[in-house]
Amino acid sequence: MTHSHLAKEIAEIPQGIHACLTNNAARISALGTKLRSQDPQVIITVARGSSDHAAAYFKYACEIIAGVPVASIGPSVASVYAAQLRLPRSVVLAISQSGQSPDIVAMTRAAHAAGASSIALTNNPDGALATEATHTVPLCCGPERSVAATKSFVTSVVGGLAILADWRGDRILKDALGALPDASSEALLCDWSELSDRLVRAPALFVLGRGAGYAIACETALKFKETAAIHAEAYSAAEVLHGPAALAERAFPVLGLICEDAAQESFRSTALRLQGQGADVFVTDRVEGLTRLPVAPPLHPLIDPLLRVISFYGFIEALSRRRGLSPDTPRHLRKVTETV
Amino acid sequence: MTHSHLAKEIAEIPQGIHACLTNNAARISALGTKLRSQDPQVIITVARGSSDHAAAYFKYACEIIAGVPVASIGPSVASVYAAQLRLPRSVVLAISQSGQSPDIVAMTRAAHAAGASSIALTNNPDGALATEATHTVPLCCGPERSVAATKSFVTSVVGGLAILADWRGDRILKDALGALPDASSEALLCDWSELSDRLVRAPALFVLGRGAGYAIACETALKFKETAAIHAEAYSAAEVLHGPAALAERAFPVLGLICEDAAQESFRSTALRLQGQGADVFVTDRVEGLTRLPVAPPLHPLIDPLLRVISFYGFIEALSRRRGLSPDTPRHLRKVTETV
Repeated sequence: MTHSHLAKEIAEIPQGIHACLTNNAARISALGTKLRSQDPQVIITVARGSSDHAAAYFKYACEIIAGVPVASIGPSVASVYAAQLRLPRSVVLAISQSGQSPDIVAMTRAAHAAGASSIALTNNPDGALATEATHTVPLCCGPERSVAATKSFVTSVVGGLAILADWRGDRILKDALGALPDASSEALLCDWSELSDRLVRAPALFVLGRGAGYAIACETALKFKETAAIHAEAYSAAEVLHGPAALAERAFPVLGLICEDAAQESFRSTALRLQGQGADVFVTDRVEGLTRLPVAPPLHPLIDPLLRVISFYGFIEALSRRRGLSPDTPRHLRKVTETV
Repeated sequence: MTHSHLAKEIAEIPQGIHACLTNNAARISALGTKLRSQDPQVIITVARGSSDHAAAYFKYACEIIAGVPVASIGPSVASVYAAQLRLPRSVVLAISQSGQSPDIVAMTRAAHAAGASSIALTNNPDGALATEATHTVPLCCGPERSVAATKSFVTSVVGGLAILADWRGDRILKDALGALPDASSEALLCDWSELSDRLVRAPALFVLGRGAGYAIACETALKFKETAAIHAEAYSAAEVLHGPAALAERAFPVLGLICEDAAQESFRSTALRLQGQGADVFVTDRVEGLTRLPVAPPLHPLIDPLLRVISFYGFIEALSRRRGLSPDTPRHLRKVTETV
């Protein structure tokens, strides 16, 4: 048993998702109506760290479901490089758990001056970002004491998907979100200790994903670094053959976050190719010759990657302790990183 | 002395830049006129590998100079996930050295169907991408035999900046590009052997950049992996404090690609903070307490990052050989990666 804040917050993910969806139902419905009337030609995301991975998740979902391009603009473009942006018919999605980082707030302000409206996803509805944003969707997942964001990451993704489902009138996605609290409880029970045994002394690995699963690979790689001091790097399963594959040999560990979606077959063949050149490949799929990690049953192709990271969180908390580290207080990190 | 194709192609960078600018002068002027009349609200980039880093460079430059957001859309969004994109008033910039990757071509075709026009930057003006694209700017840098792209990467960036300078009537940027062939010859003479001595047996490092320099950090990290089998990972100097800093201790090597731009001061303080927690930090700047790597004199804040990578290329070719590898034929890689 563990009593880390991180373990406690991971266990709260199902109720956090439920609270986020329930408490924001009216707000999200109003935002959906608003977006249908605005008909944005581009969505701009503004975020850093884990929140930027939630933004990348939204990007894939939005481009696939709504066909609207999503551009992540580095907050420094406004705060440091003083760009004069032109953003007519644009909507900004600003994501910040703490809702306090000065550069996220400055970028949101600059986007307003450039003609955009904004939606903030934040766990701090009284913070500077919520004050600046046109609309705020509070994450409602309760206080997060661990430095590593988990339930706030999951609810950031859920908030974005809920807005998207309402905006596009996507009933299938909306229903799948409604089933997510229960599915996430199942995901928390998936036991990845086979991977933990392999990584207890590993210095490095690659984490692969495709589509929204690539955003999850990024989030996963960051958590490996933060909480387990493993040099994990995320790659798109499509990009990994363009260079990084040179390192994936001689039992180099690779975690392939395969989902049941349109990319599954080509992802499987990439995983097999890496195994063939000597890498030690673990996948969230059933592929002959590769080590399989258990996952929750499929719910929706744009939600299943989120179920993967929920299974991962329990694993990484345990791995952190097995590697002799403290999951709550990663070395050299602070909860709120105020970048200017 | 070395006789690798890579060394030869790196040496050809100054003449490649010159040829790209000179041979394309009329084309780029026509594209500038076209873009002023189109007044795009968003630019979509489509690329993979090194070409995607050239696209990321263009993104920063375009957002800072033109204020127009740039969204990189993963080719899989069309080719695998079959998104129905809506891209009115959009221009696609597709970058591919080989001009042959089926997913880049498919994405360009999908963008046309969605209402966009397209510009291809390719070293193969007779390839499938050039045939598909509305406009093509050939890179004109001559054949590239090494698997690792160098002169084609540099000319991809130059082509994008030249289009941007003409479109926005930015005479200062245009003049600086004209001076780049000579400046790049100076950059090739910069000796980074102090870093080479440090990395001859290193398993991993971080490469940091900000703004367009972040795109160069990505390109640099890829080359470390491809040609020197070092697990280098790129981070924005702003993002590195949001998690990855946990690894940067106990002499972990860090390369900070600092440039003389608006981010210089905060970048310096990040580099010093990492050194303070035990990292072994090398910078392309003069900072008390950090190891300085020589660079070419500043030319333009949006071109100087490109001069950094030109200095880096000579270094990495030598490092590859010092580590007992063949610079021309990285393990497990092919020149043309055809992703579907």
